[in-house]
Amino acid sequence: MKRTARRSLCPISFGLDIFGDRWSLLILRDILFYGRFRYSDFASSPEGMATNILADRLDRLVRAGILKKRRDPELGNQYLYSATKKGEDLLPVLAAMVIWGVRHDRKRGAGTAFAARARREPEVLYADILKAVRGGVFTDLRDKGRLPPLSA
Amino acid sequence: MKRTARRSLCPISFGLDIFGDRWSLLILRDILFYGRFRYSDFASSPEGMATNILADRLDRLVRAGILKKRRDPELGNQYLYSATKKGEDLLPVLAAMVIWGVRHDRKRGAGTAFAARARREPEVLYADILKAVRGGVFTDLRDKGRLPPLSA
Repeated sequence: MKRTARRSLCPISFGLDIFGDRWSLLILRDILFYGRFRYSDFASSPEGMATNILADRLDRLVRAGILKKRRDPELGNQYLYSATKKGEDLLPVLAAMVIWGVRHDRKRGAGTAFAARARREPEVLYADILKAVRGGVFTDLRDKGRLPPLSA
Repeated sequence: MKRTARRSLCPISFGLDIFGDRWSLLILRDILFYGRFRYSDFASSPEGMATNILADRLDRLVRAGILKKRRDPELGNQYLYSATKKGEDLLPVLAAMVIWGVRHDRKRGAGTAFAARARREPEVLYADILKAVRGGVFTDLRDKGRLPPLSA
């Protein structure tokens, strides 16, 4: 997806110009729901993103102010990616997609408990997720089945 | 975007496999927010969708059960497209994108009143929209500035 001129004043089109592809929101899912921060984490997600596409999407999302990157203090030749406030503000979009997917996926994948909670108390859920993201603690949320597992 | 094998059990990935592109959700926006039902309507949206891409997306969305089509009773060689229940259920995804776009678009486009209402009373807003869609009456909602205009 190339960077192109603004298409219209529509706020939906504004968003799709940035994350309207099959991968960008999966990167954000990995960061916000699973505490994955490294290129190698994203590359190993079950959707199997090609590495050249992944690198392109990461660059685009950083340029768009959705992600920020810093050098990995442990591995100086690598970067850690995290969500900016602008990226965190996409949580309701991701949650709405989880609710929709759980409702309409006949093969019934994952995320039922997450979808139920996103309907019942979205603001509390978002606060919990952001607390986990900022604190780097994810196991707890995952173990309670409140986040959609990547498989099974 | 080609039809491909299921990538994972993630409900977000499930959705993105269907509408994860720059155009599908704009078609749904045209139908649900603006009462546009014809190929020529979609083709004239300000984002300027190429006609071959538009035809491909319409076919995909019909196959995925998001849209249904029927022959136009007035113009027998054309079709009218409408949203299925599965398509209508994407309203919260579109609304979340409007809220995000209004918040983060520095050039501040359209949709401020819509975003405020989507935050305040989402269920009432969705009901109003579906009533308008099913009744074919849109002017009222647009005139009250409750739907995001396509321009200005």
